[in-house]
Amino acid sequence: MGTRYAVIMAGGKGERFWPRSRSRMPKQFLSLLGEDSLLQQSYLRLQGLFVPDRIMVVTGREYLALATRQLPDLRPGNLLAEPEGRNTAPCIGLAALYLHRRDPQATIAAFPADHLIKEKEPFLNCLETGLRFAEAQAASLVTIGIEPTRPETGYGYIEREENPISDDFPVFRVRRFVEKPDLERAIEYLRTGRFFWNSGIFIGKAALILEKIREHLPELYRGLSALEAYIGSPKEEEALNEIFPSLPAVSVDYGILEKEPNTLVVRGDFGWDDLGSWAALAEWSPRDSNGTAVCGEHVGIETTDCLVYGQDALIATLGVKNLVIVQTPDVVLVCEKSRSQEIKNLVQMLKDRKDIRYL
Amino acid sequence: MGTRYAVIMAGGKGERFWPRSRSRMPKQFLSLLGEDSLLQQSYLRLQGLFVPDRIMVVTGREYLALATRQLPDLRPGNLLAEPEGRNTAPCIGLAALYLHRRDPQATIAAFPADHLIKEKEPFLNCLETGLRFAEAQAASLVTIGIEPTRPETGYGYIEREENPISDDFPVFRVRRFVEKPDLERAIEYLRTGRFFWNSGIFIGKAALILEKIREHLPELYRGLSALEAYIGSPKEEEALNEIFPSLPAVSVDYGILEKEPNTLVVRGDFGWDDLGSWAALAEWSPRDSNGTAVCGEHVGIETTDCLVYGQDALIATLGVKNLVIVQTPDVVLVCEKSRSQEIKNLVQMLKDRKDIRYL
Repeated sequence: MGTRYAVIMAGGKGERFWPRSRSRMPKQFLSLLGEDSLLQQSYLRLQGLFVPDRIMVVTGREYLALATRQLPDLRPGNLLAEPEGRNTAPCIGLAALYLHRRDPQATIAAFPADHLIKEKEPFLNCLETGLRFAEAQAASLVTIGIEPTRPETGYGYIEREENPISDDFPVFRVRRFVEKPDLERAIEYLRTGRFFWNSGIFIGKAALILEKIREHLPELYRGLSALEAYIGSPKEEEALNEIFPSLPAVSVDYGILEKEPNTLVVRGDFGWDDLGSWAALAEWSPRDSNGTAVCGEHVGIETTDCLVYGQDALIATLGVKNLVIVQTPDVVLVCEKSRSQEIKNLVQMLKDRKDIRYL
Repeated sequence: MGTRYAVIMAGGKGERFWPRSRSRMPKQFLSLLGEDSLLQQSYLRLQGLFVPDRIMVVTGREYLALATRQLPDLRPGNLLAEPEGRNTAPCIGLAALYLHRRDPQATIAAFPADHLIKEKEPFLNCLETGLRFAEAQAASLVTIGIEPTRPETGYGYIEREENPISDDFPVFRVRRFVEKPDLERAIEYLRTGRFFWNSGIFIGKAALILEKIREHLPELYRGLSALEAYIGSPKEEEALNEIFPSLPAVSVDYGILEKEPNTLVVRGDFGWDDLGSWAALAEWSPRDSNGTAVCGEHVGIETTDCLVYGQDALIATLGVKNLVIVQTPDVVLVCEKSRSQEIKNLVQMLKDRKDIRYL
């Protein structure tokens, strides 16, 4: 069967959580819900199914110290550093390359580091199912699809075939991946009962992942092959620095899964959210009788359906509604809640101004 | 004729400008518009009509160091300290007591320290008129009434007689003082053309002021008389500490002017505002094409009719309207602009919590 590995993809920038998420301290390293950071939560959660030695973390080189500090038990050989972010396909390709060398029979389950998973046991059960099918059906990549609870327009969807491929497990063939829909389509998706949210979690034999990269992303494959020759040599880091930044920046979904006819999807129902915005965080936070979620010190009068997130100052509110208010030592953000996806545009404005202090 | 003195009343707390205005640094000491503080602006403006030696400042004892720092030229004998704030009648009573000793013929013009006066020359001309009439008609107190430009419900009004008492000056007998009206009444006041805004500026002979205190506020008069015996003695401060806190806390308007049949009012038209709220400050600040006034560092997308006031952090805004956003090192305030008068209620909540850090 080969060994099972978890790969946590922790290289994101988390710009939609600016100003709390910063270029030196992105979202996955923040304690946005609970005491542990999202990365720590991911790592601990996966220990229910993987021994620590088989959990790998891939992050940006500038975050190595952070990752080591937050995950002191992580084996140094299980921490991979990307010289720069090139989206998920090069990240997973790199992990598959290393793990395939360690065990040619390895199976990999890959996870975004910064998502919310509310219920651990159903999550691990779902994952176990996915791993089994990935191991048994060695020609199929397996994804986790989330049973949708609302016509969300912020997620990609996975359409499945009508019936499961097994009587005992909620595993289906994938009919197609679809990008974020408009509201009308999202409502229709929900109505058919055949659509899952795309969780970004996927599972496959390391050999199959590399094979699919060769088939669908030949440029990436060539880069990885060139790199392979240096693994374990004194020139490994130099080669990585040279080759990695030239790899095509493409996602696994777009670059591989959408093009793969044999992909499977396991139904997941464990309280999931990609935490893609402050508004999403507000949804998952405890709220007072006015619907306002508070983190930090707050005093308020008639403050309705807001998220108040203070780091080291008192936040006072009066007569406001549907706002995201975030205070950090050097930035205050006040944003209409329904528009918190657009915060990256504010970040872009600062980049355009070359004002790096606040990035 | 006697000498003319200006008395600047600088003992207010400015709670409606919280969190910028604090118990240790109230509104009048802040540079809310321009580089100088409101107190400094008042002081400099009055030098157009009074030599520095004849400008007196009355403030709270806890603000003596602040006032001295901001007004280094102020003669120590011209700085009076109230052991605690007891509203304007005791404040003016105290000033009148001291100045009457200095010159029994003195005429006093009294000013709130924290108001906006936009045009200096028309202001000084108006004041000169008021001083002349106060000197000529020794039995009348004189107020400055502001020609209203909108049906403001946040100000008290002064109703005048139809015709001026002089052909050469816009000076009228006062028919009555009225408290802050509702909108319907304010519109009616504006329509009649007979109402001024009450500027809080008034003028009178020191002897007349003391006489009117004796007549309308006998308890205050008794306190001042008791104090007078100690002026210039080693026990002066001790007596002040003992007597002042027991004086009735009442305003000049309510305690004296509203009860005085002979009061005169000079029409003033010099760009005046009591700067009673952040919303008022926004009105008098330069605004961008979206109607937003900015002080400090700001980056924004679709930020309409807001006041953004940052002290030492970047303020970022997205999709917001009609907000007052104020950042200080330890407090962030976000308030619906039309409700900025209610900020004192937030301050009260902190007082109730005994949370003095933020007061």
